Formats: sequence, structure tokens, C-alpha cells
Amino acid sequence: MLEQMGKAAKEASYQLAQLSGPEKNRVLVRIADQLEAQADEILAANEQDLALARENGLSEAMLDRLALTPQRLKGIADDVRKVCQLADPVGQLIDGGPLDSGLRLERRRVPLGVVGVIYEARPNVTIDVASLCLKTGNAVILRGGKETYRTNAATVKVIQSALEACGLPAGAVQAIESPDRALVAEMLKMDRYIDMLIPRGGAGLHKLCREQSTIPVITGGIGVCHIFMDRSMEFEPALDIITNAKTQRPSTCNTVETLLVHRAIAKEFLPALSQRMAEKGVTLHADRAALAELEEGPAQVVPQKPEELDDEFLSLDLNVCLVDDLDGAIDHIRLHGTQHSDAILTRDMRSAERFVNAVDSSAVYVNASTRFTDGGQFGLGAEVAVSTQKLHARGPMGLEALTTYKWIGYGDDTIRG
Amino acid sequence: MLEQMGKAAKEASYQLAQLSGPEKNRVLVRIADQLEAQADEILAANEQDLALARENGLSEAMLDRLALTPQRLKGIADDVRKVCQLADPVGQLIDGGPLDSGLRLERRRVPLGVVGVIYEARPNVTIDVASLCLKTGNAVILRGGKETYRTNAATVKVIQSALEACGLPAGAVQAIESPDRALVAEMLKMDRYIDMLIPRGGAGLHKLCREQSTIPVITGGIGVCHIFMDRSMEFEPALDIITNAKTQRPSTCNTVETLLVHRAIAKEFLPALSQRMAEKGVTLHADRAALAELEEGPAQVVPQKPEELDDEFLSLDLNVCLVDDLDGAIDHIRLHGTQHSDAILTRDMRSAERFVNAVDSSAVYVNASTRFTDGGQFGLGAEVAVSTQKLHARGPMGLEALTTYKWIGYGDDTIRG
Repeated sequence: MLEQMGKAAKEASYQLAQLSGPEKNRVLVRIADQLEAQADEILAANEQDLALARENGLSEAMLDRLALTPQRLKGIADDVRKVCQLADPVGQLIDGGPLDSGLRLERRRVPLGVVGVIYEARPNVTIDVASLCLKTGNAVILRGGKETYRTNAATVKVIQSALEACGLPAGAVQAIESPDRALVAEMLKMDRYIDMLIPRGGAGLHKLCREQSTIPVITGGIGVCHIFMDRSMEFEPALDIITNAKTQRPSTCNTVETLLVHRAIAKEFLPALSQRMAEKGVTLHADRAALAELEEGPAQVVPQKPEELDDEFLSLDLNVCLVDDLDGAIDHIRLHGTQHSDAILTRDMRSAERFVNAVDSSAVYVNASTRFTDGGQFGLGAEVAVSTQKLHARGPMGLEALTTYKWIGYGDDTIRG
Repeated sequence: MLEQMGKAAKEASYQLAQLSGPEKNRVLVRIADQLEAQADEILAANEQDLALARENGLSEAMLDRLALTPQRLKGIADDVRKVCQLADPVGQLIDGGPLDSGLRLERRRVPLGVVGVIYEARPNVTIDVASLCLKTGNAVILRGGKETYRTNAATVKVIQSALEACGLPAGAVQAIESPDRALVAEMLKMDRYIDMLIPRGGAGLHKLCREQSTIPVITGGIGVCHIFMDRSMEFEPALDIITNAKTQRPSTCNTVETLLVHRAIAKEFLPALSQRMAEKGVTLHADRAALAELEEGPAQVVPQKPEELDDEFLSLDLNVCLVDDLDGAIDHIRLHGTQHSDAILTRDMRSAERFVNAVDSSAVYVNASTRFTDGGQFGLGAEVAVSTQKLHARGPMGLEALTTYKWIGYGDDTIRG
């Protein structure tokens, strides 16, 4: 079955690659319209998924992530319409010019071909990913979480009928609809058909893909993010940034998980931190040295377990560690970071530049919240995923990350001398 | 042992990433000078490798690939000096500017970190790769072929002493010196330390890396390249291009392996082809339809075996197939190509553009030889490898392919709203 899907996707990708921007937008508009016109079918399928999820005892937070409402569906359709407004990177000339040999060389941006995406519960991902892939002329094979597989199937059906109404093959957007886990293992070996694989999920899924996939994988989306509070920084703006980075949306990957405090200011700063974190309901997980300063403060504080330095809390919890200096902070981040987003708070220019250069993360900030690591915030217009690896795309991945390039050599009967 | 090497390489990579262009060039000049100054040690080690290779009955061609001479070593040292002249991509600003939030965002080119390279016999690769990695501030772990491991060890010793003389850690350039194959398997799992893996070798090595590596891999260097002879093309310039693409250096990956001939001109063109190929000593492997036209000609001709369409000859052999039209050529290339280099010979503008758009290869040519796919020819100044995959780098990989980027956000105590 997957072999058939792979062939259909590859075949469709050849057709998609030839479409002009307006032709692709026409499909996207049709998909948006049909999502609204056929809302009842999608919502009914979602109702079935929800009923089963309730039976299986999923948490309220999880049920909320699964649930579609007419308003949410309208929002998703509007997001598809917004994708139409984005500039189409396909066909862009990256560089080029005549070579000494007489060959006229061009490097042109082209679609990747077929993108594979493995993701978890959220039903909006199906449409988000499909619309970004279509916008860039890519076919896509989706593998959603089992909790939403009826919703995903209904959604993909709507997308496929919109594709066909525009004279395009349904193979352009396909979903693996069986919840059978063996199919994921099979999908990971489809390097003949799939050009790039994006796992959007937890560390286990990423590990599985890194170890098993014969397709190039983009991993990311896991962030043990740090803020280093340097000795030269004023407390009030620092506390505002820390609060924003921790509490604005704690479940996201760009949320700060560990605060590193310069030892020289710990005695004054930690009580102020405790005060502010208490107001925000943040529990502090303190290392031994920080614990001594925090125990008297109003914020809830617990001794830090070593493994907590290497995992995302994704909640109102924050590690606090003292470091001797900037080098101590850099060493800590190198040891425990996930190359996602890390920040320094400082008034010292040389410390700022040294941090920026020495910390090997996708995004590095000076006097700003780690929460900015996001395709929308970065002005990319869209985000397929956040990469924490170094090949192809790093950090928030916009439309460009769904393309590759091709070298085109125009000769006048030109041979190599 | 590899764990130690990985740690040392990562540690060194942090230091290399901070070097300025002139500092890196200073090391490269020293390496070049030391290669010449310590030529005797390297040549003696090479003599040992050659003696063993002769004992093991390696072919003369293979022995020639292994052999270093004072002249060759001088040439290699000069190549290192040429790398100094290349522009350093590290630190380049790719793009950036202020965001609505007030954050000032920059995307800056940075080294990858640690590059792993697995390669076969040629001893020059050790120095080529090491110098390109150092130029871009990367540490490198090399795994050369067992046939040259003494030469490689002697070379790396020279490089390491040059590094140390410049105050840099020897861990910046390391070679796995044991011929034990189990070490390759271990190397493929070192994703904690190695950021990118480049296998330079045959299809078996690439398959092993794709299947076993947990490190992102760049595969390439395997080229089943095609030329499509359209009906509108004159014979003489076509034969010049075909001759160049096949015979200029048959053992290279950008050599044409299959000629697709438009059926409408086969009767006239194939005798002319046979004439020219006979002059050049090329054996034609003809499909059934082409065989009928070629049997009378002067060139040696044999019936094509089906598997020959999917493999490189790397010799003076050329498949000849008839196709009905442009679409037939595109279909053939999609089925048998390796996304390396493919060319169309035509005078018809629309056929040329359709071929360029529809053929999904790293390099696509109009009226030019496939032999141009090469970092030097493309003006990249250097070539680490030729990628035939779509992520990160496609086609000839120059210095830029040894870098990634980092997002840097400068705030003025900026938080996300």
C-alpha cells in the first residue's frame, strides 16, 4: 500500500513542480472554500475521534488539542488563504552567470519533490502542512496521530477533491490512514519516493527517525532553552524577559527551561527572582548553591534532579543554576542544550558577542526572550517545523526550507576543455 | 577510542569557529609548507602502502591512484595554498533586519562543527578535505581506505603538528587509523559529535551510510548521466558534445553513460554516431531498436543488458536507447537516472525548457557536456563532494556547503507580545 502511495506522490510531484504561483494559489483557495463548505463532514469525523479519545481517558488538555469547532475550522481555512499571500520561492534564481568555459550557469530554486511528515494529535497540522507543501509545489505523505485519524482522513478527502476539481492528482496529498505502527517503520525506508522526512513529535519519534530512516530527516522542535543572567544586567528588565520566556506559553519548545545566574549577583538577584516567579506561579528547581538563596523566598522551590537539566518541563517549572562566569554559562549550555534557543542578558558588549559566537544554537539572543524563535515572529510567514540540526535548514523553517535548487547550464554546443 | 576522538573534535570545533580568516590561512600555509618540508616521511609511508598493495595484487590503475611522488605532493601542497585565496564564507550575513517586535534579527553563516568523511584510496583526499574543513572553521574526522592508511597517518601527523605550531588543538584534524571495519559502524552512530557525514565511495558505502548512520549524511558522486539527442539537433556539434561527455575522463561520475536518441532521426544519426565512437574506441551497448541500426556500423556494439541502464560503466562504454520523443526521454531519465547530470541536445527552445524543468537532477544541461558538473568548473573554487540528494547542498559542494547558519536576535530588553 505505501509503495502505491509513494509512486502516486512522486508522479504527482512532477506535475506540481510545473505549476505557476497563481495555479497553486487557485488550489489553495479551493481547499479553503471546501473546508468551510464541507465543515459538517470534518466536524462529524472529529466528534468520533473525540468520543474515542474520551473513552480512552485522554486528558482534558489533550482533548482540547484534538477538538475542532466551526470557529477553529474557519481559522484553519483562513490560514490556508494567508498562505496564498506568501511569496512563492519556487523558480527563484539564487545566483548564476557566465563561466569562463562559455557555459551560462543558473542556480534555480525548485521543489523538493515529496515530503513526508509524521506528527501527533493536532488536526490543524494536516492542513497547515498540506498547504505549505502545495504552495511550494511538493507532494506530501502525512502520517498523523492515531487519535485524530478519522479527522485527518475526512480533511484529506476534502483536500483531494479540491485537487481533482483543479485538474490535479489526488496523489499530491495523501494520508496513511491506518493506525498500524508498522507502517511508520515502512515509511521510514521509502527513500525511493520521499525526499525529506519531518518528524513533529517527541524525542522518541525523533530518535526512531534518526536511527531507522533511510530518508534525510529534519529533526527539531525539542528545546531545552537557557537564559544566562550576566552580572552587568539590571534586575527589572531581566525579570520581564525571564517571565516572558517562561510563562507566555510554557508548553512551547522555545520556552526557557534553565536560568543560569552569574554567581557574583546571586545573593541579590535570586530573592528578586523568587518574588517575581511566585507571582507567576513558577516552581523553581534549584541547584545546591541556588537552593540556599531561594529557600527563604516566596516562590515554590525544589531541589533539582540532575536529569531535569536535559529535559523540557513544558510547564511552569524553571531550573536555576549558578555559574561562575560567562564561560561557565557557555559550558553548561554546550553540555545540556539542544541547540534550539538560548539567550544572554547583559549590558556588556563583549560578553554579548562572545555568547553569540560561542553558543552553538539555532537561535541566540541578546537581551530578548527565547520565545521569538518562530517562523511567524521571524517574518517567514509560515513555519513547517523548527530544525535544531545543522543541515539544510536551521531554526524556524519557512517555505524556502521546502525547496532545494537545481543547477542549469545553458551551452552553445559547449564542451569541457 | 572513537568517543575520545569525537570529544576532541567537538572541543576543537569550538575553538576553530572563533578564528578569523587570516588566522585560518596561517594554519593552511603552515600545513602546505610542512607537507613539503616533511615530504620524506610521507613518501616513505606511501612506499610501504604501495608495497603492501602490490603484494595484495592491486591493479596498476589502482596502484597509480595510491602513489604519491614528490611532484604530486608539491601539487597537493600548492592546492592547500590555493584554498587560502578562496573567500571565507564564515561570518557572512545571509540576511537580516529589524522585526516589528523590535528584535533586530541576523542570519549569520557559521561552521557546521565536526565533519566526518569516509573515503577510498586516494591519499590526496586527506589533505583536500582537511584544508577545506579548516578553511571553514570545521573540525574533521577522517576515515580513509585501508590501502593508504600509513600514508594518511603520516599526512595527518604533519597536519597536526602544523596545527599545534599555530596554537591549535590536534583534535581539529584526526584520522581513524585502524583498518578495522567495525570502527566505521561505530563512527556512523556518533551523532553526538559529528554534525555531517560525507561518504565518498561506491554505492555500497552510500547504502551503508543511508541505512546505518544516525548522523545526517550527504550522498552523491554516483552518476548514471544521460544525454538526449533531440530531432532538431545537428549531428556534428552533437557528436562533439557526446564525445566530450563520454571520453574526456571516462572514470568520473559526470561522464555520460546513456545516450537517448529521438526515434525520428535514429536511421540517419546512429551510423554517424557509430563512426565517431569507433574513432574514439567507445563500445556501444544498444537496445533492440538501436542495435538494428548500429550493427552495420564501424563501432563495436553489443546488446544492452537491462541492468546496464542503472549502473555506471566508468569506462569507454555507452548505452544507446531510442525514445519516441522528449517525454520518452524524460520518463527514461526518471526511471534510470541518479539525479546527477543530464543533458538535452536540441535547437527547439520549448523542448529545452521542458527538459530543464522536468528532469529532476542536480545539474541539467542544454547543448553542453555533462562533464561540467564540478566545483572547479562551476567557479566554486573547491569541491568537497558532489551531492545528488536534495537537502542542504545539491550538485558540486564548495566551501558554503561546509557551513550552516545561526539566527541571532539582538533585543533591547525585548519580549514577545
